Amino acid sequence: MTDEPQRRRSGGRAGRQEARLHATIERLPFLTRTLAPFEVLGEEGLALIEHNADTILEEVGLEFRGDPEAVRLLGEAGAAVDGERVRFPRGMCRQIVQASAPRVFTQHARNPERAVRIGDPYTVFAPNYGSPFVRDLDRGRRYGTIEDFRNFVKLTYMSPHLHHSGGTICEPVDVPVNKRHLDMVYSHIRWSDKPFMGSVTHPDRARDSVELARIAFGADFVRDNTVMISLINANSPLVWDATMVGAARVYAEANQATLITPFILAGAMSPVTAAAVCAQTLAEALGGMTFVQLVRPGAPVVLGSFASSISMQSGAPTFGTPEPALVLYAMAALARRLGVPFRSGGNLCASKVADAQAAYESAATFGPTVLAGVNFVLHAAGWLEGGLAIGYEKFILDADQCGMAAVFSKGIDLSENGQALDAIRENGPGQHFLGSAHTLANFENAFYRSPVADNNSYEQWLEEGSLDAPQRANVIWKRMLAEYEAPPIDPAVDEALQDFIARRKASFPDSEV
Amino acid sequence: MTDEPQRRRSGGRAGRQEARLHATIERLPFLTRTLAPFEVLGEEGLALIEHNADTILEEVGLEFRGDPEAVRLLGEAGAAVDGERVRFPRGMCRQIVQASAPRVFTQHARNPERAVRIGDPYTVFAPNYGSPFVRDLDRGRRYGTIEDFRNFVKLTYMSPHLHHSGGTICEPVDVPVNKRHLDMVYSHIRWSDKPFMGSVTHPDRARDSVELARIAFGADFVRDNTVMISLINANSPLVWDATMVGAARVYAEANQATLITPFILAGAMSPVTAAAVCAQTLAEALGGMTFVQLVRPGAPVVLGSFASSISMQSGAPTFGTPEPALVLYAMAALARRLGVPFRSGGNLCASKVADAQAAYESAATFGPTVLAGVNFVLHAAGWLEGGLAIGYEKFILDADQCGMAAVFSKGIDLSENGQALDAIRENGPGQHFLGSAHTLANFENAFYRSPVADNNSYEQWLEEGSLDAPQRANVIWKRMLAEYEAPPIDPAVDEALQDFIARRKASFPDSEV
Repeated sequence: MTDEPQRRRSGGRAGRQEARLHATIERLPFLTRTLAPFEVLGEEGLALIEHNADTILEEVGLEFRGDPEAVRLLGEAGAAVDGERVRFPRGMCRQIVQASAPRVFTQHARNPERAVRIGDPYTVFAPNYGSPFVRDLDRGRRYGTIEDFRNFVKLTYMSPHLHHSGGTICEPVDVPVNKRHLDMVYSHIRWSDKPFMGSVTHPDRARDSVELARIAFGADFVRDNTVMISLINANSPLVWDATMVGAARVYAEANQATLITPFILAGAMSPVTAAAVCAQTLAEALGGMTFVQLVRPGAPVVLGSFASSISMQSGAPTFGTPEPALVLYAMAALARRLGVPFRSGGNLCASKVADAQAAYESAATFGPTVLAGVNFVLHAAGWLEGGLAIGYEKFILDADQCGMAAVFSKGIDLSENGQALDAIRENGPGQHFLGSAHTLANFENAFYRSPVADNNSYEQWLEEGSLDAPQRANVIWKRMLAEYEAPPIDPAVDEALQDFIARRKASFPDSEV
Repeated sequence: MTDEPQRRRSGGRAGRQEARLHATIERLPFLTRTLAPFEVLGEEGLALIEHNADTILEEVGLEFRGDPEAVRLLGEAGAAVDGERVRFPRGMCRQIVQASAPRVFTQHARNPERAVRIGDPYTVFAPNYGSPFVRDLDRGRRYGTIEDFRNFVKLTYMSPHLHHSGGTICEPVDVPVNKRHLDMVYSHIRWSDKPFMGSVTHPDRARDSVELARIAFGADFVRDNTVMISLINANSPLVWDATMVGAARVYAEANQATLITPFILAGAMSPVTAAAVCAQTLAEALGGMTFVQLVRPGAPVVLGSFASSISMQSGAPTFGTPEPALVLYAMAALARRLGVPFRSGGNLCASKVADAQAAYESAATFGPTVLAGVNFVLHAAGWLEGGLAIGYEKFILDADQCGMAAVFSKGIDLSENGQALDAIRENGPGQHFLGSAHTLANFENAFYRSPVADNNSYEQWLEEGSLDAPQRANVIWKRMLAEYEAPPIDPAVDEALQDFIARRKASFPDSEV
């Protein structure tokens, strides 16, 4: 990361020792939280939401559309089937999920040191997902390309604060829809060594993702270990469609992880109230996770919740409002009670540019993400415009917030050094601490240092060109890309990956669906 | 507030009923929180900090400089006096404070409906305090004037999300230092009807503030009720100076409230570690509150904590970093244990402009402010540049965040309407909720509506001029000032206030100290 050289610059021998210690800390590949999560509902409230989710599952049910095999499987397990509608006896889903879904699991990475633990008390940050557009200060807003995609893989690889390479960071619109998954998964494997996500836009593309993982990790390793996690969205309200169910089946059969995520803009895909969003989200997620556990008991599943509100005037999605924050906290508690990892949150906003609206809205989701104890955080960096665009500058600004979350999550150091009573004793009233022995000994790691915030005097800021935050972030991402060095890869593996991709691409015509 | 007319525009009879209900809610003059605060330390950690504060008070002590009467008073109460140094036996301060300081008190306002409750479970938002500079998009950064001061009093008066008029919102640099307190207090009384703060820059100015309050409220009322709250800052580390002690004495004698606030930039005024900042803050605040309770047992005191970090490279204050957030949470818990109201937080930032840095940094303090359960929040709107400037646009953006905090603090509605089970039953899988009866019935109040965020499509945003958040805020504060109407005042009271001010101003020469 670009703040590293500065951080190492001074401090003598003690400083260098501290720096080495610090370097070790920064390589830790995910957050281990130490603080109890913030709660917005008590036992009674959470039990009520669970009861309502069961009522929805029992009385209304879910539709599994276009996948008779999924319906058959759920029926055999005890659900009441009526065409594509599946109604679940009270408690059935919870029982099936709790019987076999792991509370926490490891997703392996090409670099073993980058493996992440998904579940409590850990938090994993992954970048933005799914945007057709990209934005930067130089070129404005435009369709994403495979070059943009590679750039974001590289920036994520270089950021010490992002633990996971993500999936469809942006859509590479210059590659045919039915082939771009090959280039995306390859980019994650080749240009990063962090864990990554597979394709879900068609069961065949999920299968291709698994094949590429087998080449990269070895088929034996993939059979016994989770090396991919993939995003399975419900078609809310209360529908699972054939594409998502098909992709989930592929990954479950391969023992790979899925994020079972209702995507709810309250007022459109659910009632407008937080308690209803929670009950419906839980019902939809329980249905999806139950399917996965029936396909392969023990396949890792994560309970996902992507919930926001809409403008009641225009119907446009809104972000950073207080209601979705309440939903996030409640859903995190419900996932803990169920005993599965939780995915939600990120640095979400409706703003078109990386301005104060973008930051306020992002923080209004990201704060709850950290304090609720979300385990897997998609969209942790880059998101703009309700997800329609990823911003290069926004990415840098958001990653900085992820770094701060890591420090916050450690809580207050109560060691003798942390208490620093002797330092206060030695200084006495009216004496500043700038040169005290304790300050000098803790100089390197005292405070989080943002590479992008400007804390200089107004006069110095003027002299340096009055740059705002996006302008400073612009300099940083360009420097990072200029300094990027690819992680090593076995040339035979790389060749095998490229061969597979070339063969697959040649085997069917391009298509834009 | 400028979003009101829009909010009232539609909805028919049910809509109008809802609107009336909503109007009532929006007039509530402070937040009543329903959620348990977030905690970063357990019982053991908090007890350790308290123990360390007592150790500091006992072994190192505090200096009360230039006020022998204060030293004498503390000595008579049991402290060990050595010149200006005062050492407190373990537990003495806590005992004195707990014996008489109220847990919660009412600060009255000129408009009785604007009275605020200060203490748990309430939160009161007041604007920025103390900035010599102001900034807006049209005129850039410049020294504040009494016109700016009046403008911010008016904007605060008009904002439904700020409950308190504050004090030195900006420094009116065009009025002599030794007379500007008269114009400031008059402005709060005349151009607003919300509660306000008194002057602390000299005991005489505190006395003038009390006199103005007596004219506005009646001397009898002021004797029996709190109508002012004033900011008493420690000269950290471990020093209370004569100006602050003198002002605190004036207010305590008049039964008016004080915010006893150590102002600590860790690394300069304290050791760099959070546990040390907490212990030192608690020690300093306990000493100050003890003095106030000895002057007048029962005079309302608020435990204040203003803590941030510094850049270890430049020494510049930094804001929005994770370490001060940890301090804020711990100090809130310590105040609760002591049993006094707590002041901290706000929308603090180091950024020079209302950009993404400003918003991210502000949110990193404001989030903890809300979740820690701060009772009195100074700097809730407008702060820029480490407090050196107040921004008109930043003020609008921050006040919007205060509005969201009010909604968040209500928690999740678990009523039948909140659960909305029937709405889910009636809709079924795959049916959107935009036109459902439940959505229509809850249309008016479903979600917080920001007057400044833009949630429109990219195309519409382009068409409307690609305005960023400060540009939209610029339109809003100008419209608010154009629409401002002064609250009524008894002409005799106004005349008496102006007479007093004229006589005082004529009675001593101008001075810039």
